[in-house]
Amino acid sequence: MRKTVKIRVPGTSANCGPGFDCLGVSCTIYNELELTLLKEPTLEIHAVGEGADSIPTDERNLAWRSIQTLLRRVKADDEYQGAVIRMHNRVPLSRGLGSSAAAIVGALKAANVLLGNPLDRRGLLQIATELEGHPDNVAPAIYGGFTVSLVHERIPESFSFLPRLPLKLVVAVPDFHLSTKAARSALPEQVPMKDAVFNVGRAALLVGALAKGNIPFLRHAFDDALHQPYRAKLIPGMYDVFEAARKAGALGVAMSGAGPCIIAYTTNHVAAVGDAMMEAFRNHDVSARVLALDIDKRGAHIVKDRD
Amino acid sequence: MRKTVKIRVPGTSANCGPGFDCLGVSCTIYNELELTLLKEPTLEIHAVGEGADSIPTDERNLAWRSIQTLLRRVKADDEYQGAVIRMHNRVPLSRGLGSSAAAIVGALKAANVLLGNPLDRRGLLQIATELEGHPDNVAPAIYGGFTVSLVHERIPESFSFLPRLPLKLVVAVPDFHLSTKAARSALPEQVPMKDAVFNVGRAALLVGALAKGNIPFLRHAFDDALHQPYRAKLIPGMYDVFEAARKAGALGVAMSGAGPCIIAYTTNHVAAVGDAMMEAFRNHDVSARVLALDIDKRGAHIVKDRD
Repeated sequence: MRKTVKIRVPGTSANCGPGFDCLGVSCTIYNELELTLLKEPTLEIHAVGEGADSIPTDERNLAWRSIQTLLRRVKADDEYQGAVIRMHNRVPLSRGLGSSAAAIVGALKAANVLLGNPLDRRGLLQIATELEGHPDNVAPAIYGGFTVSLVHERIPESFSFLPRLPLKLVVAVPDFHLSTKAARSALPEQVPMKDAVFNVGRAALLVGALAKGNIPFLRHAFDDALHQPYRAKLIPGMYDVFEAARKAGALGVAMSGAGPCIIAYTTNHVAAVGDAMMEAFRNHDVSARVLALDIDKRGAHIVKDRD
Repeated sequence: MRKTVKIRVPGTSANCGPGFDCLGVSCTIYNELELTLLKEPTLEIHAVGEGADSIPTDERNLAWRSIQTLLRRVKADDEYQGAVIRMHNRVPLSRGLGSSAAAIVGALKAANVLLGNPLDRRGLLQIATELEGHPDNVAPAIYGGFTVSLVHERIPESFSFLPRLPLKLVVAVPDFHLSTKAARSALPEQVPMKDAVFNVGRAALLVGALAKGNIPFLRHAFDDALHQPYRAKLIPGMYDVFEAARKAGALGVAMSGAGPCIIAYTTNHVAAVGDAMMEAFRNHDVSARVLALDIDKRGAHIVKDRD
């Protein structure tokens, strides 16, 4: 008897301004991944939606590689040697909304469920972090909410919390891709101590103000000196988009992950902020669309489960 | 008719591990400052308690200079040209427990009260930060609790919160002084990006775990790569004291301010942690005493107020 499960997994926005390489937030935009594990070594992958044309449907497929890693880890790779994977993707690819983290987490969660949950969420976080290279996106994809992540002696830890604020997420998605690799190579290896202190204070303030629900303190809490200044050149008009969003009522604005998406945080100016960001991009000859999202509170979860 | 007020102001511990130059916590060890403003230009200063012998009792006195600054700022320096100041100090001097911040805040608060509170706490924070050079200690001395502080275009902001944990503070006070200037000159101007990221994540985690009351996540949340490694050489046996405190049950340990005090955070191992820290210092031929404190929740406040 074949076992199949469908997982819904959120897109995620990492860094959140000052929280370079540690903060992340889970967004109400979802990919779905349906998995059937097979005893025979055959692989069947179907993808529809965002980036369907560019997603490999053979052994190179990221979801399948994630499943194989989990199977080996829990010593089930002898029993299950193949799979049928059906993906319905809504998270844009290579835009800074955690599409690879969603593929990894959706696949791991699905395989884990089918095997009777041998791993808890910390176990999934460990494998997902190894596959992705860092926990910033996989953590909110697993736990939901805002996450603060760190890696101590190769073990990732993620603290997840929900802000005590009715925070809306407005994401401008420009019509071009940016590789994380290119974005990372724009960063220096050494930074001024004052810039480090700048971000330490703002990241701490951001988490404190979100956790306690204090809007006035968010005013400077999204500012960043560690990564956005170096990466701004990769996104035409980035700071103009920031300013336009703030003028339209955003509490804060930041590059989403390594870009090129830009994410604005607001309580009640969603439409105005979205329009302002699109127009600011347009002034730099960049075509962009807007996603009006909420904070996802659950992380990856089962949609339906049938034997 | 002469007006006199007595202010009680807490000692404070800045940095708190990863929160270099932004975090601070207010402690239940208090200085008292009694102020009478005089119309005539005479100055009378009495100090008893900690460091009484080394506190200037003339125009150089920090409390008096703070009072003068406030008088000028609210244009009351013509009306009041002198003062009687009586200080009872319990916060050790030049040990990293915010004795100068306590002097400044106590004096500002006293003068402000006597003048009918022309300034709110933000106004006091502004002047105190100018006098002290940074908000890290004056903020918790004013607000109480834990504070996250930053300075944006010369305007300090401090977010104060109480941890949702029964946190006790165990402070080892070594028998030697350390100037903040010496401690600051030990720091580099450039730091590795990875160390900046290390602290951003831990400071954010520390604030999140404290604000939400999550003890397991405090395990790595007090770690620091930005200042303590450079300053360790100024405090014999510092890391041994850290380790001894952790082994005795501390959730976290950190240099208090720029040292030489070391502060441990624990929920229920106060005596054991204190003993372990003293012994570890003793093994490095450093004599130290221990203060077992709580988190002060009020900040500077009036003890009694009489005309």
